Order: sequence, then structure tokens, then C-alpha cells
Amino acid sequence: MPPPPDLVVWPSTEEEVQAVIAVARRRKLPVIPYGAGSGVCGGTWATHGGVALDLKRLDRIGPVDATARTVDAEAGVMGETLERRLASEGWQLGHTPSSIYMSTVGGWLAARSAGQLSSRWGKIEDMVLSVRAVLGTGERLETPERPFSGPDVAQLLIGSEGTLCAFTRARLRVFPLPEGRAFHGYDFKTVADGLEAIRVMFRAGLRPSVVRLYDPFDTAIVGDKPPHVSTTSPSQAPALSRELLPALFRVLAPQTLGRPGLMNRATHLLRKSRLVLVFEGEAARAADEDAAARTLCQRLGAVSLGPQPAEKWLASRYDVSYRMSKVFEGGAFADTFEVAAPWERVYEVYQKVREAVAAHAFVLCHFSHAYLEGCSLYFSFVGAAPLGQERERYESIWRIALSAAQSAGANVSHHHGVGLLKARALQESLGEGRHALKMLKDFFDPDGIMNPGKLGL
Amino acid sequence: MPPPPDLVVWPSTEEEVQAVIAVARRRKLPVIPYGAGSGVCGGTWATHGGVALDLKRLDRIGPVDATARTVDAEAGVMGETLERRLASEGWQLGHTPSSIYMSTVGGWLAARSAGQLSSRWGKIEDMVLSVRAVLGTGERLETPERPFSGPDVAQLLIGSEGTLCAFTRARLRVFPLPEGRAFHGYDFKTVADGLEAIRVMFRAGLRPSVVRLYDPFDTAIVGDKPPHVSTTSPSQAPALSRELLPALFRVLAPQTLGRPGLMNRATHLLRKSRLVLVFEGEAARAADEDAAARTLCQRLGAVSLGPQPAEKWLASRYDVSYRMSKVFEGGAFADTFEVAAPWERVYEVYQKVREAVAAHAFVLCHFSHAYLEGCSLYFSFVGAAPLGQERERYESIWRIALSAAQSAGANVSHHHGVGLLKARALQESLGEGRHALKMLKDFFDPDGIMNPGKLGL
Repeated sequence: MPPPPDLVVWPSTEEEVQAVIAVARRRKLPVIPYGAGSGVCGGTWATHGGVALDLKRLDRIGPVDATARTVDAEAGVMGETLERRLASEGWQLGHTPSSIYMSTVGGWLAARSAGQLSSRWGKIEDMVLSVRAVLGTGERLETPERPFSGPDVAQLLIGSEGTLCAFTRARLRVFPLPEGRAFHGYDFKTVADGLEAIRVMFRAGLRPSVVRLYDPFDTAIVGDKPPHVSTTSPSQAPALSRELLPALFRVLAPQTLGRPGLMNRATHLLRKSRLVLVFEGEAARAADEDAAARTLCQRLGAVSLGPQPAEKWLASRYDVSYRMSKVFEGGAFADTFEVAAPWERVYEVYQKVREAVAAHAFVLCHFSHAYLEGCSLYFSFVGAAPLGQERERYESIWRIALSAAQSAGANVSHHHGVGLLKARALQESLGEGRHALKMLKDFFDPDGIMNPGKLGL
Repeated sequence: MPPPPDLVVWPSTEEEVQAVIAVARRRKLPVIPYGAGSGVCGGTWATHGGVALDLKRLDRIGPVDATARTVDAEAGVMGETLERRLASEGWQLGHTPSSIYMSTVGGWLAARSAGQLSSRWGKIEDMVLSVRAVLGTGERLETPERPFSGPDVAQLLIGSEGTLCAFTRARLRVFPLPEGRAFHGYDFKTVADGLEAIRVMFRAGLRPSVVRLYDPFDTAIVGDKPPHVSTTSPSQAPALSRELLPALFRVLAPQTLGRPGLMNRATHLLRKSRLVLVFEGEAARAADEDAAARTLCQRLGAVSLGPQPAEKWLASRYDVSYRMSKVFEGGAFADTFEVAAPWERVYEVYQKVREAVAAHAFVLCHFSHAYLEGCSLYFSFVGAAPLGQERERYESIWRIALSAAQSAGANVSHHHGVGLLKARALQESLGEGRHALKMLKDFFDPDGIMNPGKLGL
């Protein structure tokens, strides 16, 4: 259980947020900005007690400015509420993280959120035109809109995970709902071929909204699942990796789980790596881009599977498994782990992490959130340990995996953030930049009350 | 004449930059980071004396990483040297400011430089993957590469105009030289129609590398000029606005200059506003985009002029007039003035600035550097004043123009930066953010030695 805060407050205005922080400064009480709590890195754990600053009552959404194509949303607005409101007027933000039913605008900004369509619409930091925040000093800050002159303070605050400020509002870019979508699935002989296809696709100027490449093990699971009719309601068809883990555990007897090396080697027999693509926007253009991508994938030896695999992905894209605990009850453990790497290092990161973890757990991986420079790697692992040693084994695997990823050239995290779980890794990765971050902390939060311990601050 | 520094140093390594700043800290000497001095806002004036930190000897360019598509360039590398080196290997940065023959990588970062192709390739802050800098504390800082976790310190330093740090190196994104280019010119009946065409074009997903709309007065001048064969060598055909001013002065007798209102009203008789477009990249795609843009412009009543006007622009794009002083000698004054505004305010900014300056000088304007949210407005004005009062009149026009632009919703500057000239305007525009900027200054530069006075710091 995460350590509970001493109290929870629900401000409904920016002034109330300022008042809370003013009191906290006087009393030297920790303040933990809180959205909807979907974080998986302990970013909102009240490790030092203090005040949970629950921002859900800052839930106002302004009218869409159709000329400027912007919308103002307060920090506590739930993701799904925002996209639904926008959709009802023919607009979209294009930001659809898997956590959309349990994450907020403020949480997105705090943790550099990436939606499932980030390859086309960007990460949250690309969608923000300006932010309003209350700093650890109690001061209110509104950043200028782009383009502007001088330093970019908004981009400094984004990703600070509550350690520098509490976001109160953001001006976000909106787009008309896509007129059309083109879905396509492909099977590649190897992960390397699939990665090359994505890299070349982006170099050629194609911008699929969804790009997901599954390694052979993950592909085997994906392939097994029945297709679903399109829906975005939760807890429907099992999600790919996360849901796979309990399923896998049910399938495999604990004694097999005890010998993950065997199973990991077996994946070499699986000679398929599946790529799922979605293009969206003006219908004709989406179709053109889909055609261009097909030519390119087939040139790299891919077999076209038609629209079905991508439609199936869409159907289950918001599904999140709440059944992980069952795995632990069963004497095993399971989790997911994500990083990003530049193209020239992606494959090596994939291999090194697999090698490092292979002896301790089953590992599978999919590649998504592709950009011109690289993409993210999303690992899932499941294993077993002698009774009572699950947590210890689980935590050692985490350490092993992260250090293998980093030494192979991966960053700390693509979109799950840092929180407590990756705090040390972030600090190590910053090198001399560590001092700058610490000094920024001291300046924005002189009393060190803002979300202490997170980001290693 | 700008105030001279007490001394000039030419470090050739990052360590030497650190050493200079260390000495300056002990002696409390101002340090003015210096590139090639093309700035027009006094950003490198040694108003407090001190040390000019000329970075031109930090001129190393690393090999292009063809997989990552990046290049490392030191702060003192001249723009034209960099693009020429890249071009010789088939690459481009896509950053071509008019100052390319007299500006450096470090200067671009310091002032948020925008190249003429920014609509397609972005401003310098969009091209940077990471930076190295020496802070006012003497500390060395290297920022992580995107995507990363935590605050974005690189974007905080970019645009700081030497007040927080001296840049030493940047990792920049490169692209293959465009396979093809499509040129097109159009005449619109009104400025408003032309602006609407650009706005709709970007909303439709088209990304011309060059977008320049000239108001009727500017169009008249542009139209008068003979076409030129394509060349990128300097001091060829006269550049549009800047070169126009002395020409205009030669044409118009001082007594006419004394009555600018008359001439400004006359521009209402000129019923043409010219748009110049260039699309570039894969040849077939550039042609498609050009065709899509034509349909769209003609729907808005534009007359197509074929490729010639755009080819002509390309031929003279690097030309800079060094003859402005002649205008002053002649008892008149001339200058250019640029800001940016969101689409819904662009036209009003254009009108308000014209109205404000109309009684004091001839005003013309072109619109360029278009984005999804808006574009920049580039005004040129020329006027006369009783002998001895030119500067006073000139400076009052500057104040009038800037305040008219800001009250109509423009930002402080799009790409000329802030320096001394717009320092007060920047401070006013920041509102409460002013305190944050000041505190950041105190933290990155505790002794206040870095380029004092610039950005109002």
C-alpha cells in the first residue's frame, strides 16, 4: 500500500491552490499534487506524509476557439471527459493515453504524457500552447503563447511531476475529428525488419497515428485473440501486453514459470513480428499514406494482413487489466516497463533487456510511439519465485532491466514518468545536469515542500 | 556606435569558456557571448563594458550521423559554413535565416532564430535535440536528448540571449537535401484573402517551406523588380523590404517623405497582395502539395502567376542592404520591425500598426513564417524628419509601432529577438512570469555578469 497523506484538500480555484501552498509553506508540510492517480511510478505517493492536493475540482473546460483551434482546460479535467466534450463539437485533442479514463490534464503535463496517437499528434508537451501553474513559492505563473521570445518556462515545468509547481490550467491545440482512418496489419519475419520499416516510413514523411510492432512472443499472444467490433468502452477485449500476463500465468504452471529461460528461448521458434498501423485525417490522404506504407513494408518482406489486426487493436485500446494482483497471489509476479531509444540503439536495447531478464522471467516487448529519431520500447515480464521472495525477485528484475536498457543507450522513460521508481536512474542519467535540476528545485520550491522525493528531488 | 567591450576573448574550447567565466565572476566583469553580430536589437552591445566572449573559434562540425540523422556543431560555426558542409554530403539543416552569412549556431540558439524555411522545417528550437552550455555559475551543462523525462532545461536556455549561459555546442537534426521544389506566385485582391489562404492551407495539412504574403505597397515594389536566375550568392538582386527603403528614398523627394500620410493612403489604390509559395521534399509530393495549394488559392479568388515570382524570391533571399545609412545621411530614416500573432489577430495587428505609424512614415508589411497557430508580420518603414530630429522621430515611431502591435495582440518578436530594443516590451508582456524569469536569472547567473541589461535582466 502506498503511504497515505495526512490530509486531502480539494481546491476548486487557483486562489485556493495558492492558499493551500501558502499554509503548507508556513507549516513546512509536503504538498503532493494529485490528479486521478493512474501513475505507475509512485509519483503521487505521500512518502513524507503531508497534503494531497487533489485538483479534480479544477474541472472547467472552456469553449473551443474555432479560429485559433484551442481549448482551455483546467488541471483536474479527466482525459475522457475532455475528448468526449471535444468530440461532441467535432474536435479532438488527439491525446488518448491508455489511462484516459483515470488521468487528468494536470497529470499529463506533470508526467510528459504520451497518447496512443502520439506519432501523429505528438506528446502532451507538443500540444500545449501555454500553461498556468502555482509554484512552490506560492506565486502564480502564466506562460506566454507560442511563438514567443525569451526562455521557455512552460517546457521547464512540464515533466516536473509536482516537484516544482501544481498546474492549474492549460491552453491546448485541438484538431477537427479525423474524416477517415486507414487500418493495416503486417507480419514481418523479424523484429529488426519491422523496426526498419517504421524508421524508413518516418524518414519518408509518413505519419501514422498508431504504430505498434510486437515482438514474436507478443505477436503469438496478439494473434491468438479473437477480433472485436470497434468500441472504446473499458474492460472489454483483453489488452495486449498487460492482460497477457495473468492469462500467461493461468496457462503456464508455476513450475514452468520457474524456468523462464526455456520459454524465452522457445520464442525463437516464433518467426513473426506483427506491425499494426493506423493512418487518420482527410480520408483520401489517409488512404494514400496507407498505400505508401504497404509498398514500403512489402519491400521489406512483410505479409499484409489487411485492416483486421489494426481494427482489433482499436477495439481494445483502452483496456487495462485490474487482475495483476491475482498473479502475485498465485506466487508469481508481472509488470510492464517502458523506455525510449534512438533508432540506431532500439534493437540493441531490446536484445540487452531480454538477455538480462531472460533467466528470471518471461519477457515480451512491443515498440510504439515512433518519431523521426526513435521509438519507445514497452516490455512486459512475468515470473515466479519461491514463496515470500516474489517482491525481492521482482524488484531485482526491475533493477536489472533498467540498467541493461540504460547501458544499451535507452533513456529513463518514454511516458510512464519517473516518480520514485526511476528517480535514481533519472539522476544518474542527468550527469552534470543534475545540479541544474537541483538548483531549479531550490528556486521554484525554496522550502522543498512540493512532492518531495520524486525525480530524486 | 554600440558601446565597445573592455576586451575581447576568443576561447577555442569549452574549458576556456569556463575559465573566462570563472575569471569574470571573481572580477565581477560583464560577459557578453558573441557570435557574428548580425543581431538588430542590441543583444550584444557592451552597455556595461566587460568581456566580449567571441565564440567563433568554437567552430568544429562533427560528422553527420546518417542513422540518427544528426550533426554536432559548436556554437561559433557560421550558418552558411554549416549548410554548405551539410549540402556537400547531401544533407541540410533547413535553417536559412537571411543572416546566414553572418550568424552562428550559438546566436541562433540564443535568439530563437527562424530560418526562411521555418514553416516546413521549424524554428531553431524545433531542430535542436540537445545543447551544451556554460552557465553564469561557470558550470558546464549538457541536456539530455529527446524524448526524455523531467523538466526541459534546453528549452529554458534557448532564447535567453546570453543572459543565463554561453552555448558551446548543439546536436541538430538534419534532413536529406530536398529532391524537388515547386514554386508558385499568386495575386490576391486583398491582404485578408491572402492571409485566409495561408491559414486554410496550414489547416489542410499543407506545409510549404516558404510562405510570404506582401501587402499592396510591398507587392508594388516586388512586382517592379526584374526576375533573376536562381542563385544563392549574396549582394545580387535587391532584397524585398530592406533594400526597398533606400530605393524608395531615392525615388521620393524629401518633401514627399515629409507627407507620409498621403503616400500611405495611396496604397489603397494598389489592389494586389502577392503570395509566394515554395514546396519542397520528395518531388512528386511537392508537386501534389503545390496543386492542392493552387486549388485552394483560386477558390479564394487568387490569380496564379506561375513559378516566376517564387523563383525570383529564391534568387534574392540572402540579400541584405548595407546602404541604410545613406538614408539617414539623406535626412531620413528607415528600419524594419517584426512581431508574430495568432491567426485571429494577425489582420488587426497589421491595421493597427499601419494606422499608428501612417502619419509619421511610409509603412509596408509582409507576412511570413506561418504556422498552424499564426504567422509573423514584418513591417518596413521609411520617413523623414527636420534635420537633427531624425533619431528622435525614428525612436518615437518604434515605440508607437510596438505598442500598437502589442495592444492588438501581437507578441514581442518572432525572430529578431529582444536584446535592449524590446527589453521593456518583453518584461511588460511577461506579467507575473517576470518574477520567474528574474529568479531564473539569479539562479543561473548569481553574480549578474551574463550579458547584463538584455531581456530587461
